Amino acid sequence: MKDDGPLAHLIRRLAVLPGLGPRSARRAALTLITKKDEMLLPLINAMEEAAAQIKTCPVCGALDDTSPCRVCSDPARDKSLICIVATLTDLWAIERTGGFRGTYHVLGGVLSALDGIGPDHLNLSTLQTRVKDTPPREIILALPATVDGQATAHVVMDMLTDYNIPVSRLAHGMPIGGELDYLDDGTILTAFQARG
Amino acid sequence: MKDDGPLAHLIRRLAVLPGLGPRSARRAALTLITKKDEMLLPLINAMEEAAAQIKTCPVCGALDDTSPCRVCSDPARDKSLICIVATLTDLWAIERTGGFRGTYHVLGGVLSALDGIGPDHLNLSTLQTRVKDTPPREIILALPATVDGQATAHVVMDMLTDYNIPVSRLAHGMPIGGELDYLDDGTILTAFQARG
Repeated sequence: MKDDGPLAHLIRRLAVLPGLGPRSARRAALTLITKKDEMLLPLINAMEEAAAQIKTCPVCGALDDTSPCRVCSDPARDKSLICIVATLTDLWAIERTGGFRGTYHVLGGVLSALDGIGPDHLNLSTLQTRVKDTPPREIILALPATVDGQATAHVVMDMLTDYNIPVSRLAHGMPIGGELDYLDDGTILTAFQARG
Repeated sequence: MKDDGPLAHLIRRLAVLPGLGPRSARRAALTLITKKDEMLLPLINAMEEAAAQIKTCPVCGALDDTSPCRVCSDPARDKSLICIVATLTDLWAIERTGGFRGTYHVLGGVLSALDGIGPDHLNLSTLQTRVKDTPPREIILALPATVDGQATAHVVMDMLTDYNIPVSRLAHGMPIGGELDYLDDGTILTAFQARG
């Protein structure tokens, strides 16, 4: 394949998507071109629609086609409960459980020295304003259980310390269905220490 | 996440691409929306460009923005040598080696009873016309070393049997850099039988 031309161009544009490498980008481009009417044109439409209609929620930082987002504008959701998540995919993961009826705050990532992401890159100032204006009764930190995620949790807790709002974190322990033999030492140790 | 709306729509359209499942489609959609100017809009442009300009080569069945394709219209390529491949990605794989200076014929897949792909679904009639009009000096079958690929090879050879053209196949054996201990029994056996 030559390195120029519209097909090579499309492949390069697809290859930068997370989850697609050069090989799957080539396969995806080929499938799209071969199924122009069933796949390529509908995907173009869906992308144009998304580009035109998706906005960032001014309250929580989530993306949605309504503003504020569906969670923030839902009268049935408990506004006095704010769950802080790193990304929208984490928000979706919690929504899929159907077990949380509060609201969210999407930071847009976690602190990362390697990627040069500092506190100013995260959606923290709106959180501060939000907490100051209408103090919630509880803030739940649902950040990744990684070094970067926990560093981010510390920064968020530091920021919230003046407002005297109870802050909780997701529990650490064995995943449901998990087998001890396949778990890492850190998780087993944490599960032991948090036993009850 | 709700199941309607432009974001859900975009995710569903991305999830049907080969190599992307529901989770990576969610991550890809999120990345696209978050980086609208750097990723989403250029990808839309690349897709529209590809949709408008990419055509099927009337000679070999490959996809390109020129018609006939770059290989078929290149005077330096040996037209009397036809390499039959299942898909365009296989053609690209051979082109990346830089070792073949003949032309191709892209079948557009292999026979598959499971997927309901019969000889009529493959680009075989143009191959017959091509071979009848200007008989090549050799046809190379570079079809996948799978059951379906080999069934396809048999059908192609049956079709070509009246034309008395030498047909060769890619050799089977150990991959370069391969270790015996990691190879399957069938490959080792074939490599033994074809030793020389």
